[in-house]
This record gives sequence, C-alpha cells and structure tokens, in this order.
Amino acid sequence: MAPDWIAVDWGSSNLRAWAMGPEGILAEAQSGEGAGGLTRAEFEPALLRLIAHWLQPGRQTPVLACGMVGSRQGWVEAAYRATPCTPVSSAGLVAVATHDPRLGVQIVPGLSQARPADVMRGEESQIAGALLLTPGFDGVFCLPGTHSKWAHVSAGEVVSFQTFMTGELFSLLSSQSVLRHGMGEGWDEAAFDEGVADALSRPERIAARLFSLRAEGLLNGLAPAAARSRLSGLLIGSELAGAKPYWLGQPIRLIGAAGLSASYARALAAQGVVAEILDATACTLAGLVAAKGNP
Amino acid sequence: MAPDWIAVDWGSSNLRAWAMGPEGILAEAQSGEGAGGLTRAEFEPALLRLIAHWLQPGRQTPVLACGMVGSRQGWVEAAYRATPCTPVSSAGLVAVATHDPRLGVQIVPGLSQARPADVMRGEESQIAGALLLTPGFDGVFCLPGTHSKWAHVSAGEVVSFQTFMTGELFSLLSSQSVLRHGMGEGWDEAAFDEGVADALSRPERIAARLFSLRAEGLLNGLAPAAARSRLSGLLIGSELAGAKPYWLGQPIRLIGAAGLSASYARALAAQGVVAEILDATACTLAGLVAAKGNP
Repeated sequence: MAPDWIAVDWGSSNLRAWAMGPEGILAEAQSGEGAGGLTRAEFEPALLRLIAHWLQPGRQTPVLACGMVGSRQGWVEAAYRATPCTPVSSAGLVAVATHDPRLGVQIVPGLSQARPADVMRGEESQIAGALLLTPGFDGVFCLPGTHSKWAHVSAGEVVSFQTFMTGELFSLLSSQSVLRHGMGEGWDEAAFDEGVADALSRPERIAARLFSLRAEGLLNGLAPAAARSRLSGLLIGSELAGAKPYWLGQPIRLIGAAGLSASYARALAAQGVVAEILDATACTLAGLVAAKGNP
Repeated sequence: MAPDWIAVDWGSSNLRAWAMGPEGILAEAQSGEGAGGLTRAEFEPALLRLIAHWLQPGRQTPVLACGMVGSRQGWVEAAYRATPCTPVSSAGLVAVATHDPRLGVQIVPGLSQARPADVMRGEESQIAGALLLTPGFDGVFCLPGTHSKWAHVSAGEVVSFQTFMTGELFSLLSSQSVLRHGMGEGWDEAAFDEGVADALSRPERIAARLFSLRAEGLLNGLAPAAARSRLSGLLIGSELAGAKPYWLGQPIRLIGAAGLSASYARALAAQGVVAEILDATACTLAGLVAAKGNP
C-alpha cells in the first residue's frame, strides 16, 4: 500500500492517522501519544511509530496534521490565522523540517480572534470539513468538548467565535472537587434537564447551584447518577446562557462526541432550537482534505 | 498551667487549640492534622499530640470543638441543626466517647437549610462569635473561603444562608486547569476590579470569560499576575451576582482571612456597599465561648 498522502489529527491526548488514496481512506491507525505528553524532539519518532509502514523508500509522502501539534508547546508553532477568514487555507500551511526524508509534514494553523480574545486549534479543520460536507451552510457550529466552541460561519468564513471551559469544569468538579463524593456513573435525563433549566433561568447563581449538589447529597440523599447528570446540565445550561447570541434564531450544527452532542442537542431542543449532529471524525478528515486543497 | 477548658477549631486541613482560663486564653497550639486526613481512630491521638501537656491527671478537662471534626467522615457525626435557629446552642452539643479519661470532648453541630438545600460546619461558630462581639447585629455575614457562605441573621438567629464554591473553583482553575499556564504570583488591583465588573455585568458569560484569560495570555501576553487577579475578580464577581439578594441594601460583616476579606470588601465597595471586616480567629474563639454557654 502506497498512500498518496497521510491525514493526521494530533490533539493533546491522542494521535490519529489516515492513509489516503485516490478513492479515499486506505487504512487508519491511532495511538495515545498526544501532543500534550511529548517534547519537541519526540514528535517525529511518535509519528513514525504509527505510520512508518505506510511510507515508501525513496519517495516523500505528504503528511497534513491539525490540532495541538501546532501549538507553542507542539512540534512547530503554527501561528494563528486571524478571523474573519476561511477556516483553513492550503496557502497557510506551515512546513515542518524532518529527519526522515520520506516525510513531508505540514501543519494546519489554528484561528484567533482579537476581541474578545479567543483561539482555537483543531476545530478550524472540523469546521472546514463540516462546510465541505454541507456546502453553502450559513449559521452556527457548536463544537462541544473540553473547551467548547461556538463559531458563526457565513459565506465560507468564520466570522466570530467564542470558547467556554465547560468540559474542563465538568472534569475538575466531578473528579477533583468536594462534589466528587456524591458523583457516580449512570445517567438521569430528568436531572440533566433540571440542571439546564436552572442554569438558563438564573445563570448568575451557578457557583451556588454547584454547591447545592453537595448539600442535597448530604441532606436528601441525592443519587450519584442524578448528581452527575445535574452537574452536566448546570454547566451546559450555563454555557447556553452565555452563548445565547450564537444560537438564538440561527441554524445550528453540532460537531463532537456522539453522547455529548446528544446532550447539547437535548438542551437546545428544550429552548426550541433544532440542532443537527455531524460526525466529528468525518468532519476532521474532510477538513484535512479541504486544507490540502484536494476536495 | 491547668486550663478550665480547651477550645478547638478542627477544619479539613488544620487543627487549632486554645487553653482557656478564667481571664481568657492561656496558651494556643496548632498542627496540620486536619480532619480531612484522619480516620475515625486517629482523631483522639492527633488531639492528644497537640494538647496532652495541658491536661491534669485525675481531672476531666472539657474540650469543645467545631468544624469538619463533626462531619460524616469526622470523629463523630454531629447532625446538622435546622435553620432558622441560633447559630450555636449549648444544649445541642454532641458528646464524644474517648479512651483517655482526662478528655471530655463535645462537638458543635453545623447548620442545615432545607430549601434551597445547604449546609455549613464551622461557620456557625464564627457567626455566633461575631454576634457575641457585635451584639444586636441584624444583617448579613459573608464568610469568604473554599466554600463561601452568606448568612442572613436577625434577632440572634440564622434565618437563611447560601454557599458558593468560589474558593474551590479558584484553586482548581488556577492550579489544575489550562489556565494554570498563564498564572503567576503578584497582585494587580486593576485586573481584579475589571474581573469583578465584568462578571457582575454579564454573569452568564463566566465560562467564556474564564477561557479568555488563556486566549489573552497567548495573543496579548496578559501578565501572569494580572491573569490571576482577574480570575479572582471574575469568580468573586460571579459570587456577588448570585448573592445580590443577600447584600443589596443590607449591613454586611465579612469574616475570613485578611487578604481575601479585603478583596471582597473592595468588590462590594465598587457596588456602593460598605462591609466591615471582622477577625476570623477571634470570631471562631468567641463562638466556642458562646457555644459553651460561658460568655
């Protein structure tokens, strides 16, 4: 197998690669060697461990990578492109010098916004892919995750975007704060809905509503699954309260993990907003295709 | 030295004790053996390590303790007293059986509130002490800390209270989230003021404003001291937005660590509210005196 090129999604925690042929995907591979755990010198060996068997002697195979691989602590810093702009541009790719002559690596830069200050890395490729998959879409993409993004897209450009620390807050609060004592597996949709409604109606009370999960556990025996679901609802509801200018009266597409996207869709539906869910991996891969300029 | 009794403040992280004579404090001692790090059987030895030299052979010395020592994971669980009620009551103390006959230990129970569900442990003694030090006070106590409390007190009773997870959020976000990369020592009052004003005017945007600290660090070189001060301002401003029904038009007394209380007083002053700061240790000790019924 000799791929035409290799698509790479290199985030903080994971590394995924696809061998691309003229008809599409020939093979795929992944490892846990995310950009967050590597020093500069460790990137090339980590990549070769995953894809060396796809390379041909005497030929340079193009490799296109997006994500935290291009951050200041990554392989090579790929400076942000300033919005408003297209999500990706084949002219804006940043080349990486490698020791192995079979590699021709380029990195997709992230996007920045001056006011309010904001940045993304990796999501620009997902947005580009979503636009390739739904041509002509004008509206808002929501990309839920550790640092959820809301991006307003018009005429093929990212016009503005905003990041919310929702996923990271959920992770810290459910596993490292006093609330961890009352958290457990399982899912309680009614508790999730309550949390969303509560946060949307009184967003200024969020820090008090969080502690009430602990108090209700101690006083009323709040079930661990209900506590975790309500925590998720409170944080997503708080995000929706802040992101209202993005979703109010706009067509919405969600790009993210299936379960999390379903939670966002449910929370938006309670506000009368129908959000279509796109497959995140398909968007990432389509975005790398778009960035390469070979749609 | 033979104290009449011993006052003990036993929180999650620290243990403090005062030997009390007819004229007041005879001696004091403290250790890092907080209730959070002890199993049930380790409480008595930890206490003896600190105060055994104050005890007399053949005599039982009363020991009165408040704080997390009375929690479900503490020495003995002291069930919450339900508000509205006086902050402490000598009739409500919970006795602890000890191996050493020289110890006569009693625990001050915390307070609970049914709706909205809320609990406190340790702060009830500080409130009782503050009332002893400022008799006849009718108004609101704010006790900033890991879990900040706002308590409305009238006619000597705690009428209602609310807890905000502000301090714990600050600790998690500044030391364990992505924001830690841009945080540093030092203090920037203008950045703190900005954060307070920002959170108070748009409290629903808190999760986005948090991420903007990261983005401003990457794009505009936001100074580490300014980032930390603005984070503090955002979280305290968010708490003030939620606690508005408590502080609006009310006399306020702050009980907490000096630096943190000064930050709250500054944030309240920007809203036109004058808050007097009380010494937290003096309040705790006076509260234990009040709980003992020997004012």
